[in-house]
Amino acid sequence: MSAHLGPTPLRVVGQRVPKVDGVDKATGVAQYTVDVRRPRMLYARLLRSPHAHARIRHMDVSRAQALRGVRAILTYRDVPPVVHAGQPQPRAGSLARDQRILEDRVRFVGDGVAAVAADHPDILEEALALIQVDYEVLPAVFDPFEAMQPAAPSLHGTDRNLVIPPFIVRHGDVEQGFAEADYIFEGRYETSRPMPAYMEPDACVCEFDPSGRLTVWISTQAPFMVRGSLSEVLGIPMSKIRVICEHMGGGFGAKQDLYQYPYLCVLLAQRTGRPVKMEYTREETFVAGRSRHPVVIELRQGVTRDGRLTARQARFVANSGAYASHGPGITRVGTNALASLYKCPHVYIEGLCVYTNAPIAGAFRGYGAPQAYFALESQMDEIAAQLGLDPIELRMRNMFQPGDRGPAGTPFREVMLPACLQRGAELIGWAEKRQRPADPGPIKRGVGVACQLHSATSYPAVKEAAGAVVSINEDGTVQLLIGAADLGTGAKTVMAQIAAETLGVGLDAIRVVSGDTDVTPYDIGAYASRTTFIAGGAVQRAAEDAKRQLLDLAAQELHAEPADLHVTDGVVASRSDPGRRIAVKDLVASPGGRSARTIVGRGTFAPRNDYSFAAQFAEVAVDTETGQVEVLQMVAVHDVGRVINPTTAEGQVEGALHQGIGYALMEDLVVDGVSGKALNANFADYKMLTALDMPKIYVELLESVDDLGPFGAKGLAEDGVCPTAAAIANAIYHATGARVRQLPIAPDRLLELIP
Amino acid sequence: MSAHLGPTPLRVVGQRVPKVDGVDKATGVAQYTVDVRRPRMLYARLLRSPHAHARIRHMDVSRAQALRGVRAILTYRDVPPVVHAGQPQPRAGSLARDQRILEDRVRFVGDGVAAVAADHPDILEEALALIQVDYEVLPAVFDPFEAMQPAAPSLHGTDRNLVIPPFIVRHGDVEQGFAEADYIFEGRYETSRPMPAYMEPDACVCEFDPSGRLTVWISTQAPFMVRGSLSEVLGIPMSKIRVICEHMGGGFGAKQDLYQYPYLCVLLAQRTGRPVKMEYTREETFVAGRSRHPVVIELRQGVTRDGRLTARQARFVANSGAYASHGPGITRVGTNALASLYKCPHVYIEGLCVYTNAPIAGAFRGYGAPQAYFALESQMDEIAAQLGLDPIELRMRNMFQPGDRGPAGTPFREVMLPACLQRGAELIGWAEKRQRPADPGPIKRGVGVACQLHSATSYPAVKEAAGAVVSINEDGTVQLLIGAADLGTGAKTVMAQIAAETLGVGLDAIRVVSGDTDVTPYDIGAYASRTTFIAGGAVQRAAEDAKRQLLDLAAQELHAEPADLHVTDGVVASRSDPGRRIAVKDLVASPGGRSARTIVGRGTFAPRNDYSFAAQFAEVAVDTETGQVEVLQMVAVHDVGRVINPTTAEGQVEGALHQGIGYALMEDLVVDGVSGKALNANFADYKMLTALDMPKIYVELLESVDDLGPFGAKGLAEDGVCPTAAAIANAIYHATGARVRQLPIAPDRLLELIP
Repeated sequence: MSAHLGPTPLRVVGQRVPKVDGVDKATGVAQYTVDVRRPRMLYARLLRSPHAHARIRHMDVSRAQALRGVRAILTYRDVPPVVHAGQPQPRAGSLARDQRILEDRVRFVGDGVAAVAADHPDILEEALALIQVDYEVLPAVFDPFEAMQPAAPSLHGTDRNLVIPPFIVRHGDVEQGFAEADYIFEGRYETSRPMPAYMEPDACVCEFDPSGRLTVWISTQAPFMVRGSLSEVLGIPMSKIRVICEHMGGGFGAKQDLYQYPYLCVLLAQRTGRPVKMEYTREETFVAGRSRHPVVIELRQGVTRDGRLTARQARFVANSGAYASHGPGITRVGTNALASLYKCPHVYIEGLCVYTNAPIAGAFRGYGAPQAYFALESQMDEIAAQLGLDPIELRMRNMFQPGDRGPAGTPFREVMLPACLQRGAELIGWAEKRQRPADPGPIKRGVGVACQLHSATSYPAVKEAAGAVVSINEDGTVQLLIGAADLGTGAKTVMAQIAAETLGVGLDAIRVVSGDTDVTPYDIGAYASRTTFIAGGAVQRAAEDAKRQLLDLAAQELHAEPADLHVTDGVVASRSDPGRRIAVKDLVASPGGRSARTIVGRGTFAPRNDYSFAAQFAEVAVDTETGQVEVLQMVAVHDVGRVINPTTAEGQVEGALHQGIGYALMEDLVVDGVSGKALNANFADYKMLTALDMPKIYVELLESVDDLGPFGAKGLAEDGVCPTAAAIANAIYHATGARVRQLPIAPDRLLELIP
Repeated sequence: MSAHLGPTPLRVVGQRVPKVDGVDKATGVAQYTVDVRRPRMLYARLLRSPHAHARIRHMDVSRAQALRGVRAILTYRDVPPVVHAGQPQPRAGSLARDQRILEDRVRFVGDGVAAVAADHPDILEEALALIQVDYEVLPAVFDPFEAMQPAAPSLHGTDRNLVIPPFIVRHGDVEQGFAEADYIFEGRYETSRPMPAYMEPDACVCEFDPSGRLTVWISTQAPFMVRGSLSEVLGIPMSKIRVICEHMGGGFGAKQDLYQYPYLCVLLAQRTGRPVKMEYTREETFVAGRSRHPVVIELRQGVTRDGRLTARQARFVANSGAYASHGPGITRVGTNALASLYKCPHVYIEGLCVYTNAPIAGAFRGYGAPQAYFALESQMDEIAAQLGLDPIELRMRNMFQPGDRGPAGTPFREVMLPACLQRGAELIGWAEKRQRPADPGPIKRGVGVACQLHSATSYPAVKEAAGAVVSINEDGTVQLLIGAADLGTGAKTVMAQIAAETLGVGLDAIRVVSGDTDVTPYDIGAYASRTTFIAGGAVQRAAEDAKRQLLDLAAQELHAEPADLHVTDGVVASRSDPGRRIAVKDLVASPGGRSARTIVGRGTFAPRNDYSFAAQFAEVAVDTETGQVEVLQMVAVHDVGRVINPTTAEGQVEGALHQGIGYALMEDLVVDGVSGKALNANFADYKMLTALDMPKIYVELLESVDDLGPFGAKGLAEDGVCPTAAAIANAIYHATGARVRQLPIAPDRLLELIP
């Protein structure tokens, strides 16, 4: 694992260094948004709709307003009539622009109706109860197929309640492909509504100073997006908005979105002239957060008898809930993923994203891909079983080659999937376990495999820039300013490693400053699997820029050529004449030490797409009498290019497997089909695996030479979640012969299918 | 005033814009160091020596330690045995390295003996009183001439108690010069011990986080110097030290020095594991702050009967007090100033800086020059009177020419002094008032003039770098990061104007971030008259660098040449085809607005020296019966190159005149010649002019074309204080015939001299 590649031995990159902010977090010094307290701060909360679909006839806030300690109430009459998220062109990008800050209409149970600010959080509940709302209840629809019917209630006035026009991926001639097939496989796969369930609830604190400058502390993956959207929606120039998010208790994609609450919090701060804090209750994180999209995938593939895919046709129908959020983006990514992974000459996939009166789905680790791969990799297993082929062999027969185009349109530079499959099979003992005779008792064991490929950038049409600035201190230590946020994944540590390696100093010499839009260069945000890849590339370039300045100075001092010089342990030395050397600090600080040269390196990186591959193996034990599934072990072999920090990289895969197993077996926010109410919006009823529930996990990171990312690193964050559910479903099939095409694979559901 | 020069009309530079932080300051939002409160913060104070010179035989802190609420006590036994300020080579630069954090010896009344940290400030007094110190009192010396005698007690073991070897300026042959003279003038001039008396007392808060990072909030002119010195003395890498000083209530030079207290505060924070605050009492700012050096100048000049100077010989003897502080620097600057201002072929000046057991003198507006010019400009007035020449005429006959070398060794580019003299004479009605018959009663009026030239940099041997970073936001507004501090002078505003002008945006579009070593590029500090000149130059270069990137992008978009493009009001347009235009925000933000280009400009400026000139005129009314002097008006005409902001520039001159008039007439920390105790270390007994005491002041800023500084700006901060005392002394002579050669010109002193 993490053996060094290439000719130059690396000193900091590739090491299992602890997180640079680990001590601060462990000792409670790290300040999260929920920890922020400001003098004279008010507390605010939203009143939320009890109806899935209704028009507001009338609101009376007078009794709430009269309550002692209530400072301000906002309804749809008090807020600017603007939509609050997304891009200038509606429905053109990954987000659509369809939700107002508040409106006289509600579209799901939990939709915002009013916001109250008060002196103390204890007052808020009572104040919300005193707001009288006269609703005209409208018919609601929760199923996307029903929502597409002509008779269905229209949520946003779009054709068939579609969020965007159908997204089509087509190549070849799918009819011809089916004609060439010996067998045709067809299945309908349904995925569930898991929640990111981050530890830190959504929260912000908004404060205006007397000169009109706004400071927003917010738990966000994308501080610059927050700044940009607040600036646009509220008409405040960006130079007067400061967004701060130094530490964060998880986001998993959902916190790259902008909900109603920060806009309302800013407006309440504006109205009251005081700092205002909004912090979601745990229940609110469920009903007003963002789930992964429930998707129905109708998948039909043609295959020859020797196992070559000839045609793939599919429909990807995503339930967006009441608003678009990232529906457009996940529909594109999911549809592209369905069209990909294995070579197939004739493909026609249609992606539909449908409004319903369910809670809002959004961006969540995998971004459409976990749904697609659950269908695709389940069906590959079905095909292998039917053809009597080993599932790995079937996959190998349909493997992409370097130069073939990946789902984001750019060609594969390398196809590491065969290596992942081979190594994973070794680790789990595939050959032996697939041959093993059936267990005698009611507990049946089985092994399954599923694969994925994923992209480290997500907006191929747009340059996804990240920026970094590197300053060399007078003693040779380094200030590193990055726009990227750290969700808790260790991004700051990885960035520090990249800077230290590039500059030839120890990790301890790097001070990382991030999460403050006032001082760091622009970064679009920490989402997808992009931070190590893109922000890391910016850091590498900024460090190289600073190093170039250092070497130029050193070349003058040492009468050497810059190209002949290298920096190690804070000393610049000549390669050809190692006696010629000068300490970095003696280059930066002036003779006498009372002044210094200003060495500021800058870097930006907006790369083309790159792909990473993974093969994951599950071994399960199924109690055929109860339908209970125990995952015995998972083996995850990931192609990651270069590993910057094995500990944090493995942590990413382990965390993704945790969410993947939950996705497979239990995690699902259940929405009542009549009322639209979430039935398990709390940690008592929404079941997740605890640490004790987790199986043994073997993560192996396969390194390859990929010179696009920093030191060859690729994205990693999402990959682990994408194939997990299919691997488990396939292992269950191997154990029991039951093919489950619906998530989660709950005992009652499984029991019905066990032959 | 501030008429625009050059061909390009300027839009932001030259405007009387209000301070960018004015509202924050007026509303109390601006946080000064004294406002900083941290959770679990302790309070600390120093025990100070009651003796001017003593050795500590024994200390017993046990009773103080036992006091409830006392958390830590440090004596000389508990601190590292290192000197805490100055340069690696002792006595080589502007500071000498001779003061330990604590020592078993004290050298002035007020020298630090111990430091106590306690839960509450109210405990400190009692705790300090409980520390028992057994002193062996040593003989003390307070007069520098006595201190140079062989029998005098030695403070630091140096020859004749000299801080540095005598500093000599010599050119020509001074004996020959005197031989060529028709008249020789000789005088002994003595200056006083005025205090900067800033509103915000010296203060710092020091806090370690659990990972060992140190944050220091401190009222300092030089955050990076604080970081550098703490790093070196305490052995903490700079990347682990963050120095913050966002707003400051004055410094005037004294706060570019490092006193004992921040080192002790850091050590107390280290020992207690808690944040510790130290804040000087007002009395401490007097006894343990830094005064201007009291200097004795023996000046002898030869002159021909037609008023040409032939020789100048002088001795500049500065009383450094117990430690060197900036004594080496002010001795050089003062000695150079004495050798300068008027052309003289034969010069020999000796500068001496002498240790005594008086309180420490240090850097204070003018840095040696006010003392020198008091002597030189008084004697020029004496020469004019003796020769029967108009004082202006005498000065004109000895004027430097462009190309002659200034006191810092670099040649004058322009000599603006004749223009200053001429305009000042017009404004005050010089010709008429000099001819006016003597007033009949006991109140006699008179007018006087004095001049100065001053340099905007102070370490000619060392590059005085400043750095700036400019980031363009997605909406075209700008983040400006500067290392320079703002003492309250309006530096941030001037920096914002320079950035706005360069980038073609409004002032409102600029957000200035400063005073945080973690995020801004290096700047040596805000001292001398350098910030507008040097830091402003760095800002201009950073903005130009960002603009160049913008124009390159625009050139691609508009299919134009970068050289043909200009930026105005946030729009880039072609000069040759004004229809070709694109908004800056459309260049920075990507199509669709979901990403942005990272545009980061960087700039650094380490210029050669530049000089500014001034002529100041005083009109006084002297009550010849009481010796009371009333300044009726002051006219100050200053050569400033380009005025960036007339309001803040005039404010600088007005503030300097306030300190100059106080220097002339009343401000003096009186030190008892036996005990060494300061007798008026409080605002009741140390007299300063209030706003109501101030005369009418006419400030005129003469603009000239000087392309070295940003938009041609030069330094200004110190100049106004340098000639004021001599102008007033000369006006008193004109009114009364009394020549006062000792500051302050107190009524009793003057009364003795009135003929």
